[in-house]
Amino acid sequence: MQWMRFENQGSIGFGLVEGDRVRCYEGELFGTPEATQTLLTVADLRLLPPCQPSKIVGLWNNFRAAAEKNGWAEPAEPLYFLKSPGSVAGHLQPIAVPASYSGRVVYEGELVVVIGKTARSVDVQHAAEHVFGYTCGNDLTALELLHGDVSFPQWTRAKSFDGFAAFGPVIETRFNPVNSQLRTLVGGRERQNFALSDMFFSPLELVSRISHDMTLEPGDLIYCGTSLGVLPMKAGTTVDVVIDGIGTLSNRYG
Amino acid sequence: MQWMRFENQGSIGFGLVEGDRVRCYEGELFGTPEATQTLLTVADLRLLPPCQPSKIVGLWNNFRAAAEKNGWAEPAEPLYFLKSPGSVAGHLQPIAVPASYSGRVVYEGELVVVIGKTARSVDVQHAAEHVFGYTCGNDLTALELLHGDVSFPQWTRAKSFDGFAAFGPVIETRFNPVNSQLRTLVGGRERQNFALSDMFFSPLELVSRISHDMTLEPGDLIYCGTSLGVLPMKAGTTVDVVIDGIGTLSNRYG
Repeated sequence: MQWMRFENQGSIGFGLVEGDRVRCYEGELFGTPEATQTLLTVADLRLLPPCQPSKIVGLWNNFRAAAEKNGWAEPAEPLYFLKSPGSVAGHLQPIAVPASYSGRVVYEGELVVVIGKTARSVDVQHAAEHVFGYTCGNDLTALELLHGDVSFPQWTRAKSFDGFAAFGPVIETRFNPVNSQLRTLVGGRERQNFALSDMFFSPLELVSRISHDMTLEPGDLIYCGTSLGVLPMKAGTTVDVVIDGIGTLSNRYG
Repeated sequence: MQWMRFENQGSIGFGLVEGDRVRCYEGELFGTPEATQTLLTVADLRLLPPCQPSKIVGLWNNFRAAAEKNGWAEPAEPLYFLKSPGSVAGHLQPIAVPASYSGRVVYEGELVVVIGKTARSVDVQHAAEHVFGYTCGNDLTALELLHGDVSFPQWTRAKSFDGFAAFGPVIETRFNPVNSQLRTLVGGRERQNFALSDMFFSPLELVSRISHDMTLEPGDLIYCGTSLGVLPMKAGTTVDVVIDGIGTLSNRYG
């Protein structure tokens, strides 16, 4: 089942995808939403980020291939930062070049976990009960800010400009990441293609471990990290993050 | 003017302090709240965090005295992280020892800026228009987590356990930080006493500069950093953060 959120003639709605249409629902996405009689044509809608996270967790060094190539040690625990919740962007929403930063900005294609139920110190065996679904993410990063100060890596700052947390187009509730690939196309050309099974910490392990550090709330996102093929974008570039079984997140940068 | 938020007989309210009582208001704290006829006695209420931030920014290395003593270079720009918005605690709310961490936890007495109006790329000359007021903060930190992995300092993780962002007791809207001192008392004994004027980046400079990196929203907090005198807490310790002109934030740890 694929949930989307959209703007339609000035009002915001959400619903379940049925082919090229969407069945509108009422109520709370993470509560017990109820179907209505309204069916809209997806092509007529402006898609929004599929939910509004209270926080956005992002992983560093969570893929074996990237660690091997970069000489990073296997992490003993998930290594993560927070992105500003205001940095979200939906499918097809253009992402502006930051006005206050002129360095390189890279894309990072990622699988994103969407939390469905409050998670506090959850065992990995019960983590799936707290997951609502999965979506595609692009975790944009202002490269020169990251290590611009030798005393303090600026993960949050480099990753929190408006639009730097793109996700969508939908939240797929029946997705199983075990056998899936993620591909990132830049201007239509494939630049990333990696197996989601190559993670050091699987999505459910991430939910469990992070929930021991901080309480996760419905709608919160975990960007599971990226692998090889990260490159800077030129203004005007379109980046597509494709996960079979979820869909394609497409954003123009600049 | 001092705003507080509270629970009273199962319902949540907010209002302005009038001596030992509080004048209840209706509406939105960051909108145009309206006074009611209801006056409550503060001593009868359970205080809550004075607002619910969408994000909590915390500064590192923002005090000259601490930088000098620790051998940290003067930062060219504010160096900051995000704490989980779920880690808030109000005045007199006990803060639990994390179940999943057995290392040292330190207090950090800090001045906290409360944003009142959306701030995006705001000049320092206009920053005050976006500040609602100031409050006292205790930015708790799990010390061994910070540098437990040599490849990735875990600022967010070390500072995001439930209760690790204490602030209150009130938001003072007429506070001027220039000539004020902050004191931290641990078990009644003074452990921190520093001038707020010793910051590398003043509160208004922080608002301006951070607003160029990420959009700040009403209710967002900026913990302005701490100075000398940070020490680990034993379970059972009470920590008071005192700023003359704002009040005393008091929390029992463990």
